[in-house]
Amino acid sequence: MMQTMTSQSMQQCIDDCLHCHRTCLQTAMNHCLETGGPHTEPEHFRLMMHCADICRLAADFMLGSSSVHGPVCAACAEVCHACAQSCEQVGGMDECVQACRACTESCRQMAQGLDLGNFTGQARTTSTLQDRLPM
Amino acid sequence: MMQTMTSQSMQQCIDDCLHCHRTCLQTAMNHCLETGGPHTEPEHFRLMMHCADICRLAADFMLGSSSVHGPVCAACAEVCHACAQSCEQVGGMDECVQACRACTESCRQMAQGLDLGNFTGQARTTSTLQDRLPM
Amino acid sequence: MMQTMTSQSMQQCIDDCLHCHRTCLQTAMNHCLETGGPHTEPEHFRLMMHCADICRLAADFMLGSSSVHGPVCAACAEVCHACAQSCEQVGGMDECVQACRACTESCRQMAQGLDLGNFTGQARTTSTLQDRLPM
Amino acid sequence: MMQTMTSQSMQQCIDDCLHCHRTCLQTAMNHCLETGGPHTEPEHFRLMMHCADICRLAADFMLGSSSVHGPVCAACAEVCHACAQSCEQVGGMDECVQACRACTESCRQMAQGLDLGNFTGQARTTSTLQDRLPM
Repeated sequence: MMQTMTSQSMQQCIDDCLHCHRTCLQTAMNHCLETGGPHTEPEHFRLMMHCADICRLAADFMLGSSSVHGPVCAACAEVCHACAQSCEQVGGMDECVQACRACTESCRQMAQGLDLGNFTGQARTTSTLQDRLPM
Repeated sequence: MMQTMTSQSMQQCIDDCLHCHRTCLQTAMNHCLETGGPHTEPEHFRLMMHCADICRLAADFMLGSSSVHGPVCAACAEVCHACAQSCEQVGGMDECVQACRACTESCRQMAQGLDLGNFTGQARTTSTLQDRLPM
Repeated sequence: MMQTMTSQSMQQCIDDCLHCHRTCLQTAMNHCLETGGPHTEPEHFRLMMHCADICRLAADFMLGSSSVHGPVCAACAEVCHACAQSCEQVGGMDECVQACRACTESCRQMAQGLDLGNFTGQARTTSTLQDRLPM
Repeated sequence: MMQTMTSQSMQQCIDDCLHCHRTCLQTAMNHCLETGGPHTEPEHFRLMMHCADICRLAADFMLGSSSVHGPVCAACAEVCHACAQSCEQVGGMDECVQACRACTESCRQMAQGLDLGNFTGQARTTSTLQDRLPM
């Protein structure tokens, strides 16, 4: 029924984003709030919530075949990267660190147009972020 | 690390919501927009998008251990129910129909406080929606 | 250009929801996280975030002319009501209390089908929530 | 009560994002779906929905004092820019075009660190997007 031209690498990126959304949200709203201390330090807690939010957005853009998922994935990679670093500093958050790192890597590839497609092995013509910014 | 008091039935409901979010969003933005005709009829298309949106919200409430997930699951059940009916009328949308029906059923149980918990088998004291509405 | 059949009471409800979204989110992520103590107590903080989230959803449903905004507004009224109570208990959160109360009231009217329309003064045929729940 | 260090330019950007969210969502779900034809052409309609979604996200990041709003605003600027162009081509969507253009401009300034602050006139130390991308 549904014709989705989603390559394997994009499918992997969607899965990584949805997993990171779920992990960061669940950890922030349970573990972090219940533990307190550095876990509810504003900068760290904001990163957890914002990471969850943009991961959901990036997944939704890709599920919806957006032609402009590139810059969204680039932004998602940066937020995930910052969140992973913050989780490492706080400590005891290995699950989040792993989810954020996996999502950083697959979003980074998406943003750079390294989505190689299913069959052809040919790089998509998506330009890099800085070429496309309307600035 | 993460202490989540999520019962098996709530876990199932979260999974059903996230699956329904993904299925409805992906189908609306690809199959429906590309097929047109009854698939982009306003009432049907709105239901698809709103169903995806509230399924994500309901999942987020449960992942975040919300004390007020009951009325949200009740609302989600109603939207999923309406979306399933609309998809049946349009036809050729079996995947959405199944996702919406499964989500309707598990959200309905959550809303009615039929979440039996992990160990005790004792019904949660969540009151029914109409008791709790501040009206 | 845009033909929106939004009645004055629905327009008011949309405005109340968007104001409550903004107020709760901004307060939770700044005042609550920076103040700590009872402001980051899990139950209270979750209510703040979930209230912001469902207010945005309810506004989006009404902006998108959803046929099933009734149960969403009912759920939004209950979450806003609980959030207002929690903010009163914590204290020093008058802006949130007021935003949540205004949103509770206008969402409650929407859910009960008290949206009287612009010109006719005729009550919409939207049934009450308990009639329509697919249970 | 609430201490928000939001500069005037960031406040303007938040307002522009929330206005663009509302305008694109309301237009897509009403005018576009009811008019059909080029208004529900997949690429155009997706841009409308994705523009509404990322504008809400960008506003939420800034309302929540995110330290990583820069790349999100950069992505938002690009999506709004693409949406404005698409709306111009379709025609008869002046309100969307204006909302998207205003949002493109203020998000572009946020992303470039041109948020000059309220009093000091000193540029924030936010680096440009390409410096900060974890690639």
